[in-house]
Amino acid sequence: MERTYVLALHGGAGTIARAPARDMRQAELPYHAGLRAALSAGQAVLARGGSALDAVVAAVCALEDNPLFNAGHGAVFDADARHTLDAGVMDGHTLAAGAVAGVRRTRNPVQAARELLRDGGSVLLGADGADRFAEARGLAMVDPGYFSTPQRLAQWRRLRMQAAGATALDHDAAALADDAVPLSPDAPRFGTVGAVALDRQGHLAAATSTGGMTNKAPGRIGDSPIVGAGVYANDASCAVSCTGSGEHFIRACLAHDIHARMRYLGQAVGAAAQGAMLQSLEPLGGRGGVVALGADGSLAMPFNSQGMYRAWVREGVPQATAVFE
Amino acid sequence: MERTYVLALHGGAGTIARAPARDMRQAELPYHAGLRAALSAGQAVLARGGSALDAVVAAVCALEDNPLFNAGHGAVFDADARHTLDAGVMDGHTLAAGAVAGVRRTRNPVQAARELLRDGGSVLLGADGADRFAEARGLAMVDPGYFSTPQRLAQWRRLRMQAAGATALDHDAAALADDAVPLSPDAPRFGTVGAVALDRQGHLAAATSTGGMTNKAPGRIGDSPIVGAGVYANDASCAVSCTGSGEHFIRACLAHDIHARMRYLGQAVGAAAQGAMLQSLEPLGGRGGVVALGADGSLAMPFNSQGMYRAWVREGVPQATAVFE
Repeated sequence: MERTYVLALHGGAGTIARAPARDMRQAELPYHAGLRAALSAGQAVLARGGSALDAVVAAVCALEDNPLFNAGHGAVFDADARHTLDAGVMDGHTLAAGAVAGVRRTRNPVQAARELLRDGGSVLLGADGADRFAEARGLAMVDPGYFSTPQRLAQWRRLRMQAAGATALDHDAAALADDAVPLSPDAPRFGTVGAVALDRQGHLAAATSTGGMTNKAPGRIGDSPIVGAGVYANDASCAVSCTGSGEHFIRACLAHDIHARMRYLGQAVGAAAQGAMLQSLEPLGGRGGVVALGADGSLAMPFNSQGMYRAWVREGVPQATAVFE
Repeated sequence: MERTYVLALHGGAGTIARAPARDMRQAELPYHAGLRAALSAGQAVLARGGSALDAVVAAVCALEDNPLFNAGHGAVFDADARHTLDAGVMDGHTLAAGAVAGVRRTRNPVQAARELLRDGGSVLLGADGADRFAEARGLAMVDPGYFSTPQRLAQWRRLRMQAAGATALDHDAAALADDAVPLSPDAPRFGTVGAVALDRQGHLAAATSTGGMTNKAPGRIGDSPIVGAGVYANDASCAVSCTGSGEHFIRACLAHDIHARMRYLGQAVGAAAQGAMLQSLEPLGGRGGVVALGADGSLAMPFNSQGMYRAWVREGVPQATAVFE
């Protein structure tokens, strides 16, 4: 029986600046456009009968290429004023996975993760080894400067001026408003991007990609490339992509916790995603959100941050995007 | 109420060479001695009222320092003829965790993981960033040659001669017997080391450390430093350390799966560990074993490989070590 496809993605969560009402829609417009473009890229794959796996990779590639989002081009700077990128992908049909951590030269980290999944050898490759693998597989390689944008550099400089050693999660309120409002340490934002999909064959997949946190410790790896933390897919339950304070998502094994609640408690994806956020993430102080898609096509997108950039489409139903409630 | 402490550790699992009966005990003796020494190091911490966290770090440090085990001094060589070391540690009381991946200069990777846990910032640091962190925290740093041993180099050379690109999981049957028996690709061994402990205060902790697989892809990160895959601890359920074909453990989220079965299915640690091995790991083709310690002090050490080096002690009961059934 052929099913209808579903695709959902996120472009980060956190304390998103609510600009004055009049200006808000204006400031948000490019984000909505970017989300729709990525959604369309993944939707095109699903609409021609392609796999959930190919769809999430296509959607995340589009977000990596968009400088508004903290992944690929437009990634944040670490404490060494460099970029290190993480990405992970998982196929719910085979439970195959691939992930890269700390790449510096691979234009689309999610494609390197996809190649590792295809390769079937290592699941997770780090640093230079991951870049070398991507290069050997013929992926597009770039000069590290490709990832830099003036906005991210300005954001990094503001943060460094404010507090030596402080980190901020992705583009902040000030960057969104594109003004000089100083960063508040209470106002983190999480710009990780990700996608989950259900294809017409009934298979699930998930992908997550990130530049990490502004001014992060060199070498810091967040939850995005960690199977079971920031990315997970299993046809027996759900596909999950997370965004938020990565360390808490790692300690909570958040993506796998949603799977486990569905599998072992018999919960639906909505209850499982809410339960994992409330009972596993929040007690640790974790902030952020998840996009979780059940094998039955049900979609849950809970977040405990002020907003989460998200977009979704279901076959035969128009695309939708949202930032706040 | 003060409880009695429990400590268990493993020194790797896999197809362990069964030497001719007469020689076997002889060949195994140094391994048993190494396991007992590590057990004593951790036991000393617990016996003086120390924490499970400090005990597992002490035990794993001893195994890292022992060239017989594939962690720290005695780590295997990767495809670049270098060593990259991974380690992770988790505190079941606070759910704090720390892990390093791909370190090259830190003498005891598990201590770097411990320092990250204490620091409370990043949970997982990779490559040079992890070494720099360890150095800044005053840990002992070594020249990369410190990790090399003639046995591991010979093992790597044999493997390279046999099959370009092949990998073997840790010291193999030939290395154990210290002869020239060629490596069989069907005879992997997994030399990751790890420990789990329950202290008198009733808190759990787990630690895992490894050199990875002989001739592994440069940058390859296995399950050992991944919270929820090769290491996990939660006072609400259990402490787990894994050894085996790391990619399968990552895809199965094996350590967290044991926790989830206890928490959501109400299983005891023995049933949960067996269930996770049989239902989550084996369908993927995964091989290896786990040491899992329940919050009630129950210990489970299932493995689906031919043997697993393991040792355990319970307060008031003599130490025990085992390799086969």
